[in-house]
Amino acid sequence: MRGLAYLLVAVVAVTCGLVYMGRASADTGGEAAPVFGVKLPPGYRDWKLISVAHEEGNNNDIRAILGNDVATKAYREGKLPFPDGAIIARIAWSYVPSAENNKVFGRAQSFVAGAPTNVQLEVKDSKKYASTGGWGFAQFKDGKPADKAAHETCFPCHVPAKANDFIFTHYAPSP
Amino acid sequence: MRGLAYLLVAVVAVTCGLVYMGRASADTGGEAAPVFGVKLPPGYRDWKLISVAHEEGNNNDIRAILGNDVATKAYREGKLPFPDGAIIARIAWSYVPSAENNKVFGRAQSFVAGAPTNVQLEVKDSKKYASTGGWGFAQFKDGKPADKAAHETCFPCHVPAKANDFIFTHYAPSP
Repeated sequence: MRGLAYLLVAVVAVTCGLVYMGRASADTGGEAAPVFGVKLPPGYRDWKLISVAHEEGNNNDIRAILGNDVATKAYREGKLPFPDGAIIARIAWSYVPSAENNKVFGRAQSFVAGAPTNVQLEVKDSKKYASTGGWGFAQFKDGKPADKAAHETCFPCHVPAKANDFIFTHYAPSP
Repeated sequence: MRGLAYLLVAVVAVTCGLVYMGRASADTGGEAAPVFGVKLPPGYRDWKLISVAHEEGNNNDIRAILGNDVATKAYREGKLPFPDGAIIARIAWSYVPSAENNKVFGRAQSFVAGAPTNVQLEVKDSKKYASTGGWGFAQFKDGKPADKAAHETCFPCHVPAKANDFIFTHYAPSP
């Protein structure tokens, strides 16, 4: 029976591992973005919430920042630099007033997510992306990557956040 | 061997089911909120992102709306009313400018999540909460529920969203 028990444990471990990997899968088919060769991880919308933000100006968006399991763990433990395998996804939507909500509040105060703008990714691979702080960058809309010129702006923009491993977003603690 | 194979399948199924239930668990120890008796689900921060919003006025917050697996599935399939077991969590943070981000943009345009404000929950149980549209409501901060008076305001405020099963938040599609 001991052999059978070991077999059961092994099968359960492997199968649950595969189930877990299936949930957390980060690679995909799909088109690779230029410069860094990053693909859109198909399950990224299921990732954990890191924080939220609103950008005025040219962006005029409202955004959520999600992390895969590696990134979320590092965020929650406050560990820098992020380990290889960490992926951060920033989803943005146009910033629009909600007539429906404002009616309830009795004043114009509510702004919600309108049409989706794009999703940006930061993928940590300290060897592959050694020349850009260990991060590969990508931007997608409707599953299609932005062009080369757009991707060449990613790392220079992130340089000022060097002390935070080139990442602007901080973890928003739970209430 | 056929018996062993069945046994393996059964053990894997049960074990993975337990793993899954562990991830999606919605009940807890902890203090129950008044009026509806809702407790804070301990894993709610791991739930899926439904949408984001910003409220000006007295709230002056930025918020994320998360759903447990039942709520997220209903949202993604566009099914109303939400089925029993659906739980929606609204996390809010104070709405604060990011000096760090504004420095990079060269203008004051970036607003991020500051200190957490509170988390509000909507729990669907069409029998238990039949008199309030099938929803139980709760608000917590630091694991402690708000008082009875606060909880008595929840349902009346949600009545205008009756056509959307009393829920204001719509699913924000992925880019």
